Amino acid sequence: MMRRKSFAGMQCPIAASLEQVGEPWNIMIMRDALAGVRRFDQFVRSLGIAPGTLTKRLKGLVDTGLLEKRRYSERPPRDEYVLTARGREIHDVVLALFAWGNKGIDRAERGVVLVHSTKGHEPDPVLVDRATGMPIADAMFKQVAGPRASERTRRRLSSVAN
Amino acid sequence: MMRRKSFAGMQCPIAASLEQVGEPWNIMIMRDALAGVRRFDQFVRSLGIAPGTLTKRLKGLVDTGLLEKRRYSERPPRDEYVLTARGREIHDVVLALFAWGNKGIDRAERGVVLVHSTKGHEPDPVLVDRATGMPIADAMFKQVAGPRASERTRRRLSSVAN
Repeated sequence: MMRRKSFAGMQCPIAASLEQVGEPWNIMIMRDALAGVRRFDQFVRSLGIAPGTLTKRLKGLVDTGLLEKRRYSERPPRDEYVLTARGREIHDVVLALFAWGNKGIDRAERGVVLVHSTKGHEPDPVLVDRATGMPIADAMFKQVAGPRASERTRRRLSSVAN
Repeated sequence: MMRRKSFAGMQCPIAASLEQVGEPWNIMIMRDALAGVRRFDQFVRSLGIAPGTLTKRLKGLVDTGLLEKRRYSERPPRDEYVLTARGREIHDVVLALFAWGNKGIDRAERGVVLVHSTKGHEPDPVLVDRATGMPIADAMFKQVAGPRASERTRRRLSSVAN
């Protein structure tokens, strides 16, 4: 499981996330895994990533528990990389990045768009509370100290207008 | 504005996003900016970041158009860093990272939690289509080739089970 203390000793869960995937290739590998890619050669073709780099990144994602290595052939020995439950949960992060990325690219310049496969419309993604439908970015949602908040975390939370 | 071609020549808007903020400190700086932090010393205190690193990261975020430098004192000369419209739009990405981070940390181990300030409940964040409320992760939403899709992008989109 994730360590509680994150980079630079920060307790913010964003720091904890970035410790696991705060490297551009990792997110792109997770994008492909979420799209059904499992095999080394497929990742190489899809990403245009150097095989040595991919080997290192896949090992890291297995070590942090986002992917699981599974043998699919004994002769020759071949492994594939399957999302863990924790890995699948990153889906909304990847989709939020997708949506934010495309918002910054002129409509006529887009290489990839997201559409509803039968209705054809492009969604306008917003992060909401599942139970109430209220946008999470709403000022009514505040960050507060959790059970393990350090002094530094408490100081930050009381000093920012969050 | 964002270049159309992203790292490693990928056209995916996620790659475009990561080209702008694919560095752990940048996301943490954006977190603070979204929480109302504007001044150099406040960022240093909140993040525990080395001043030299912060100077570089702030310059990068100004160069890519996510923050704007604004003079707030002439004597001595002092600048603050204010979110641009494009910068504000990253809010859901940061909140999705926050939610995913905390999902990976045991409840009793959390340093920071998000709560509704009057109702007190913790939200369960999900990315949905604003108009229909349908989850964006739903299999009905598919990535398809956009107006500027390259051959490589088309090959990827047709080969993955997205």
